[in-house]
Amino acid sequence: MIDLHYDRDGLVPAIAQQHDTGEVLMLAWMNREAVEETLRSGRVCYFSRSRNALWRKGETSGQTQRLVELRVDCDEDAVLLLVDQVGVACHTGRRNCFFRAVRGDALVELRAPAVDPRSLYK
Amino acid sequence: MIDLHYDRDGLVPAIAQQHDTGEVLMLAWMNREAVEETLRSGRVCYFSRSRNALWRKGETSGQTQRLVELRVDCDEDAVLLLVDQVGVACHTGRRNCFFRAVRGDALVELRAPAVDPRSLYK
Repeated sequence: MIDLHYDRDGLVPAIAQQHDTGEVLMLAWMNREAVEETLRSGRVCYFSRSRNALWRKGETSGQTQRLVELRVDCDEDAVLLLVDQVGVACHTGRRNCFFRAVRGDALVELRAPAVDPRSLYK
Repeated sequence: MIDLHYDRDGLVPAIAQQHDTGEVLMLAWMNREAVEETLRSGRVCYFSRSRNALWRKGETSGQTQRLVELRVDCDEDAVLLLVDQVGVACHTGRRNCFFRAVRGDALVELRAPAVDPRSLYK
């Protein structure tokens, strides 16, 4: 099994990138168990810091991420997940979580939700 | 100025992505001062956790990152930097830091250094 340098909470940041378009979908966190489950199952599993539990992406919303490749950075303290995203990655109903950008002193919204988030979490 | 949810060390993770190709170059950290300097100067500035100081990317290596756009995620606790990278982003002399991937139980190297890292840090 691969060895990563987990932080003092036992976590590494994980970037999810759509494997074919290059779109950066989200940033979340993984502990050792999440990394191992993801590699074993081929479905991306994170660690939810707010729920303090494994977070099998899409288990309630259906918006799963199939793992295409797991890459590790030079310091072995961050991972890049090349994934195939089903539907939308963001809980707001947008394809990716980075939908606001700085313009001057303000944040502007770059895109509206693609789906109603209430339809994702029934 | 934009307001982010910095962690207990005063940091947010920052993904640097080449603005035109979509290549994910690196993941590093920013504190409030680094975010403000980056927005003000248009040159990416991180916070180095190992040196506990601002890290003006490329200040010793010349491998600078020009900021094209700074995006913020849904939870306001991670940023995506669209940048124009001069030369190589990784201190190992590779274009990006995510140059190893899991294959079976091992990490394999996807690419060799583009430049000799000793030439970057004189």
